[in-house]
Amino acid sequence: MDMLQIIAELAQKTPSKILLVVLDGVGGLPQGPGGPTELAAAHTPNLDELARESALGLLTPVYPGLAPGSGPGHLALFGYDPFRYLVGRGALSAIGIGADFKDGDVAVRGNFATLDESGRVVDRRAGRPSNEENARVVGKLGSAIQELEGVRVSFYTESEHRFVVVLRGEGLGEQVTDTDPQKTGVAPALAQAKAADAQSQRTARVLNLLAERIRAVLSDEPRINGALFRGVSLKPRFPQMSEVYQLRPACIASYPMYKGLASLVGMEVLPVEGVEDALEGKLKALRESWDRFDFFYLHFKKTDAAGEDGNFAEKVKKIEAFDRLLPELLALKPEVLAITGDHSTPSALRAHSWHPVPLLLRAPWLRNDPTQRFTEDEAARGSLGHLRGVELMPLLLAHAGKLQKYGA
Amino acid sequence: MDMLQIIAELAQKTPSKILLVVLDGVGGLPQGPGGPTELAAAHTPNLDELARESALGLLTPVYPGLAPGSGPGHLALFGYDPFRYLVGRGALSAIGIGADFKDGDVAVRGNFATLDESGRVVDRRAGRPSNEENARVVGKLGSAIQELEGVRVSFYTESEHRFVVVLRGEGLGEQVTDTDPQKTGVAPALAQAKAADAQSQRTARVLNLLAERIRAVLSDEPRINGALFRGVSLKPRFPQMSEVYQLRPACIASYPMYKGLASLVGMEVLPVEGVEDALEGKLKALRESWDRFDFFYLHFKKTDAAGEDGNFAEKVKKIEAFDRLLPELLALKPEVLAITGDHSTPSALRAHSWHPVPLLLRAPWLRNDPTQRFTEDEAARGSLGHLRGVELMPLLLAHAGKLQKYGA
Repeated sequence: MDMLQIIAELAQKTPSKILLVVLDGVGGLPQGPGGPTELAAAHTPNLDELARESALGLLTPVYPGLAPGSGPGHLALFGYDPFRYLVGRGALSAIGIGADFKDGDVAVRGNFATLDESGRVVDRRAGRPSNEENARVVGKLGSAIQELEGVRVSFYTESEHRFVVVLRGEGLGEQVTDTDPQKTGVAPALAQAKAADAQSQRTARVLNLLAERIRAVLSDEPRINGALFRGVSLKPRFPQMSEVYQLRPACIASYPMYKGLASLVGMEVLPVEGVEDALEGKLKALRESWDRFDFFYLHFKKTDAAGEDGNFAEKVKKIEAFDRLLPELLALKPEVLAITGDHSTPSALRAHSWHPVPLLLRAPWLRNDPTQRFTEDEAARGSLGHLRGVELMPLLLAHAGKLQKYGA
Repeated sequence: MDMLQIIAELAQKTPSKILLVVLDGVGGLPQGPGGPTELAAAHTPNLDELARESALGLLTPVYPGLAPGSGPGHLALFGYDPFRYLVGRGALSAIGIGADFKDGDVAVRGNFATLDESGRVVDRRAGRPSNEENARVVGKLGSAIQELEGVRVSFYTESEHRFVVVLRGEGLGEQVTDTDPQKTGVAPALAQAKAADAQSQRTARVLNLLAERIRAVLSDEPRINGALFRGVSLKPRFPQMSEVYQLRPACIASYPMYKGLASLVGMEVLPVEGVEDALEGKLKALRESWDRFDFFYLHFKKTDAAGEDGNFAEKVKKIEAFDRLLPELLALKPEVLAITGDHSTPSALRAHSWHPVPLLLRAPWLRNDPTQRFTEDEAARGSLGHLRGVELMPLLLAHAGKLQKYGA
């Protein structure tokens, strides 16, 4: 059952405002037994004070043991069951790089490969070229190939051997097999329609033609002379937050992936001045748009980036930078304020992990709560208990007075 | 997946007895930050002593953020997934007022309305008449209309503009649209069969005829001269507790809603002497029927009523009244005793809320538990952790030795 349908029947408009702050990958691990996590090691006087007047709990982002990517982690926080609301690999890549990607477009993840004279795959990643080399080849393809059978073709560089193709044209489908054979010594597979629909057949035909054209254009390249396609996907059409929650939602983020995910669920993506995490730009956008919306998703990226780099001290610093910002968020007086992460990224693991993330909720109608700081250990004994990521939105709506009673 | 099917395969009869006490709406909130909830403020020496030898936990009645009505809240406690076992609005109203409502009957919620000369709705609630005025008009309708097209028609007063119609006859269906147009200035809608089945078409025909007859009978009334129908529903047929749990279950409650919900799942509803919550009458019924059943659902209403009234002190008193009764329940020596609520009704909110309810379990095979009192704060650190309402019954059956191993 899709809880979104139930929630949609109960949601009601009220003037109260919800601010959801996502500190990307904020959950951490101790560096050694008994040691502090990044959150516990950070000096966070503002968060500490806030924690004392808030309720805490733990959120398992998607499912115990699952380390989620940005897609499922965020969709869950927005209340969309990440096992039901799927974003194809091609679509997620297109969103992540901020490609021009619209309803009806098909996105495909491409891997550059090395083929031998008879067309067999020698290296499925073309020796992992540098990002610069990737960008050079993508530029060459973009100049040579712009349209096939009436379909506009756009190439985007991603990193190393990875690139993205966006197809735009009438009647394209996504039920199409990958051409990556998953092994060397054989030729790339042909793209085939998995279903009998004319749309998917058209996409398959265009991709097979595209693979040929790419080989022709790259025939003078020593290493990057072929392409393998994966994850053919239309831009998903998800229910919009305005419909299911009766909210006017806004996204304040500075990286394409998060802006893209927010726009999939119908948030208005606000422009943010500044580069990278752009803390000041985000604050400015929040302040200036405060009256126009009743739900704000505010994203900070650098906690995750530091965790991915395995840099404990840097992640601590990024947490402290957010702490310094916090009084300005509180000054806006959101009725409901939630601070959490989309997943953990412990610097000890240098990767996304499956560990629950701490959740802080400051709102009307809270129970008493013994927690004193915003840390994983404190959150584990918080009064909100242990929730799933997807359960957060109904809770925020309830505390904001935006959910009617279920059943008589 | 319906867990009831799994449980049904594992349930076994044993001589042990389970007593499930539901203090309606018992969960509360502090009146101010850090203050006690109603349960924490109450003087409850017997509950305190019991808590020290019991295990505690928190139950989220239906889903985080959802404030359940009595229907979903209770069905969950009885182990019936409230998103799967739905009771239509008409059926729930009929049950709630204790109407004569049998398998095959169709119940409909009626709203008295004011119509103008051309039949357009002027007021969808007929100016919210008094309950007495409602009863007078319902009496008039009951005298004038007893049967339509071979279908017996019974009218029941509910409150203000609300009444209930029960249709009894062969071949009635429930896939019928509401006639309430949800706005004024237009005529009531015609009831229409949503499905092509003859049964629903028959119900729709009878309801349209009934709306005409009601207008004719009430043509001399200045204000209450029409009726709008909503929530057309057959009496639900749910699996019976005797089948799914191998129990002989009894209900001891004094309000129609709870007796009706219990009878839907196959409990024998025992007569209770006395008015309103009838504490002594309930104890008497429990004692006298103790040998005949192995599962008792014992319901107390006044905790919820005081919460709905926003009366903190009164809710405290009702909790204390239950505390004084407790030794007599313990004297019966149920092998498994659970005390909980179907939802929270904090007097601060004057309404059902989404907050988890405390659960107390005294039974064989408990883990150690640090809790000292039956309060929300203590329950949040209890050894049972945080469960959903629907998960309670399997736990009670297990502690009573009534559930076999799952899988080999």
